[in-house]
Formats: sequence, structure tokens, C-alpha cells
Amino acid sequence: MSQKNRKQNRHARGQERDTTLYEGRNAVMELLRAGRTVDKLFVAPDQNGRMADIIALARQSGAVVTQVDRRKLDAMSETGVHQGVIAQAAAHEYVSIDDLLQVARDRGEQPLLLLCDGLTDPHNLGAVIRSAETAGAHGVIIPKRRSVGLTATAAKASAGALEHIGIARVTNLTAAIEQLKENGVWIFGADAGGDKSLYEADFAGAAAIVIGSEGSGLSRIVREACDFIVSIPMKGRVNSLNASAAAAVLLYEAVRQRLGEGYHG
Amino acid sequence: MSQKNRKQNRHARGQERDTTLYEGRNAVMELLRAGRTVDKLFVAPDQNGRMADIIALARQSGAVVTQVDRRKLDAMSETGVHQGVIAQAAAHEYVSIDDLLQVARDRGEQPLLLLCDGLTDPHNLGAVIRSAETAGAHGVIIPKRRSVGLTATAAKASAGALEHIGIARVTNLTAAIEQLKENGVWIFGADAGGDKSLYEADFAGAAAIVIGSEGSGLSRIVREACDFIVSIPMKGRVNSLNASAAAAVLLYEAVRQRLGEGYHG
Repeated sequence: MSQKNRKQNRHARGQERDTTLYEGRNAVMELLRAGRTVDKLFVAPDQNGRMADIIALARQSGAVVTQVDRRKLDAMSETGVHQGVIAQAAAHEYVSIDDLLQVARDRGEQPLLLLCDGLTDPHNLGAVIRSAETAGAHGVIIPKRRSVGLTATAAKASAGALEHIGIARVTNLTAAIEQLKENGVWIFGADAGGDKSLYEADFAGAAAIVIGSEGSGLSRIVREACDFIVSIPMKGRVNSLNASAAAAVLLYEAVRQRLGEGYHG
Repeated sequence: MSQKNRKQNRHARGQERDTTLYEGRNAVMELLRAGRTVDKLFVAPDQNGRMADIIALARQSGAVVTQVDRRKLDAMSETGVHQGVIAQAAAHEYVSIDDLLQVARDRGEQPLLLLCDGLTDPHNLGAVIRSAETAGAHGVIIPKRRSVGLTATAAKASAGALEHIGIARVTNLTAAIEQLKENGVWIFGADAGGDKSLYEADFAGAAAIVIGSEGSGLSRIVREACDFIVSIPMKGRVNSLNASAAAAVLLYEAVRQRLGEGYHG
């Protein structure tokens, strides 16, 4: 491999900050449908015409489409499951907390936001973003440090949801919580030993749900910043849900409560 | 590597049917606590005494404890995240559907079961089993074919839940559904385009929830065997939840409904 190719390869792997890889039919299709700028599309030889729609859409959007050997895709792939297609796009554009609150205002809804306190597994982050999007939440807030970012794996696990929901990346999660409080949003931390169960919490008003990390739950400082700690009943012997399962359960309790009060989504 | 070592290694990898590997502190600890017979415990050199409790428990249970190089654990590991400890135990013992129904009777509860129609990702299967256990369900039913089995990855993703909830593995999922119906259990298939939302379904009676595969949802024949098709509201543009997130949302809607009706768990 020449020096130049090596550099391009490193670039293509998304190890530099300004581009991200999107892998797999679903993730790439959602990216294109969302109108995101795709720089390059790499596709394996397409024997059954299954890539025709993606290639057409990519060309239409101005992307450079390159047919590459499947082994090259394997080498580029971060997720290991590229399904014959990888798109290289500008890195995800984060939005501000004000932007997220504006989405709620634009929809005429009470804000529903999800904060992730230090998720480290990109599958979990992707699944959480997917659940937030399907639950009609107005955004997801993640910290810059001690958290996984929007990697190709996270993008793939989000099944394209990443393109349809705003993500704010903040330096300080407790400062973000303060900002939300100033905007009238109630903060519900999800953790064991809460004041009440999630079914007793009121998610119909302006609400932000905070999910802790896979291993250790909410950090002490974030826990203390919450207005309420709500717990998901643990009926068995295992004492916690997977972080993305917990997020889904909490978000859909909010959906249920809002359906009951004339929520229009 | 000698011929003999090679064979043992293949054995230890769980590629033969009669043993399974359990990897990571959590999974191994739950295995030992559940009183399961562990044949061998492989541990990396323990510099901080963090393995002392696991080693003591394993010795007490009659397991052969072997200290091995961390690289050997890496080579044995199926999950890639063994945290310095791998246990080799007899393969998971499946139970019958009658056994699962008996668990509900013993607890004096209406049956709550989860059926997985063709999950292929062991992380998803493990997360689904974990959610079923924490929701107090009485068992999980998986098909023998076209489904991932209880691999080390699934066991690890279940966070030990596998040891505390019965799993029935059936040849024919529709026959299993018929058997449940004969026992007065209502079958709720989770799929898009359902007759009603999950919030309108009645999970307080004897209920089995059927989750489809990651890619294609419920198979036609299973869908037709269900008494009801229930849908989770999709408020965004992505049209489905992750299979394990969907399972958690449905199971916890059952928990909520049962809490409201004097459910004791």
C-alpha cells in the first residue's frame, strides 16, 4: 500500500474527525434520504441489482460512487457488517440544546428529551437513539467525554434514526441539566432505589430522562442534579436492565402517558 | 499445538454441544450463584485479588480452577470481553413449556411468557432474556432452527439472567403457540400494522408475547397463529424498534398493567 493510499484509508476509516463512515444498506439509505452530504459511496459488485436504488440516490446527491472489492469493504468496515455498501459522509452535525427545545415548540409538544450519562457501548448508544426517534422524542444529549461518540457502529445500530433526530453533544452534563431546568423541563434520572416507579412519574409535561452508563448507572453528580429518581421495577434476581432496554421502557411510558392526554404525534 | 490440545481447545470453545463457555465476572458469578455445575474455571493472574470471590466459590462447587495466561483466555473467548475469567459448564439445560407454566402456578401468577421468532443476534437474545427475567416473566421460548442459541455472547448479554429464568427450545413455534392456547394463554404478536396498540392490549391475564426477528419481524405462519397483533406506536420516521427494545417495552407494559391489578411480584 502506498503512503498516499494508506493515508486515504485512515481517512476513510473515520479516524480523522471530519468524516464518518456509514455502513450497511439501511444506514446508508437513511443517510441519503435525509439529504445528508455523502462524499463517497463504496459498493461491492452488485449481482442482483439490490444496490441500484442506493447507487441512483447517491449519484443524484452528487456522491462519487466507486465499485470496490468486497475485501476492501471488509478492511474499511468498522462494524464488520457492511452488507456490501459503505458511505463516507461529513461527520455528524451536532445541534444545541436550544435547537432541541425549538423542535418541541415547532411540533407544539411538551419537550421529551433523553440524556445519556456515559454510555460506552456504541450498540447501546445507537439503540437508544433509535428508541428516542421512534418514541417521538425531540433530541438526545450526550457528553463529550467519558462517552462513546457517533461511530459507524452507533450509526448502524440506530438504523438510520441518527439522521432524523437532533443530537446535542455537551461539555458538561450537569450544566445541560441546569439549562433544561431553566427552560421548565423536569429531569427524571433512571436508577435503582428511586423515589418512585416510572409509572408514578409524570412524563406528560416537559420531561428529560437521564440514563446511566452500562456498568455503574448514573454518576453521583448527575444523580444529584435530577429532580426525580425513577426506578423500573425489577421483578427477578438480575438487578438492572440493559441501558438501551431501560431507555426504551422509559420513553414508551412517556408515549403512553402522552397518548392519554391528547398528545398528537 | 499438539493434537490433544487442539481437541481440548475446540471443546473449550463450546463448539461441541455438551459444554458452554461463560465469560466475564458477572456471567460467571451468576452461574456459580445459581448452583450450576462448573467443570472448569480459567482465570488470568489476579493482581488485585478481584477474582478471589469467584475462585473461592468455584472451588467450593467442585470446579477445577486453572490459572492461564491472558492471551489464552483471549484465544478461548467467544465474546472478546472475558474480563480475565471464563467458566466451562455443562450446556444450558432447557425446560419444557409445561415447566414454564408450572413456574407461573407456583408463584400464583397469570403466565407471562416471551416467544422469540427467529432472533439471529446473540446480543439481542441475551438482552431479551435479561428483560424477561427483570420483568418477572415465567420463561422464554425459542425455536431450535433459524434462531441463535444460548451462546457465550448471549449468556453474557443476559447479565446472568439466563440462570434465573427457564428457557424452552422448541422444534416448532406454531405448535408451541397451540400448546399455550390449549392452556388458556392469549398470544400477542408484536408487529407493525396491528389491530391495536400495546396499551390497548390486556396483558393482565395469561399472556405470551411473540417478538419477530431483527430483519423481517414475525414470520407469516407465526403471525397468523397469534390471537392479536399489537403494535408499538412509531412516532418518528424509523419504522421499528430494535428487537430487544421492543421486547422490553412490551414486557414492561405487562408489568404496569399487572401492578395496577394487585399483581404481587
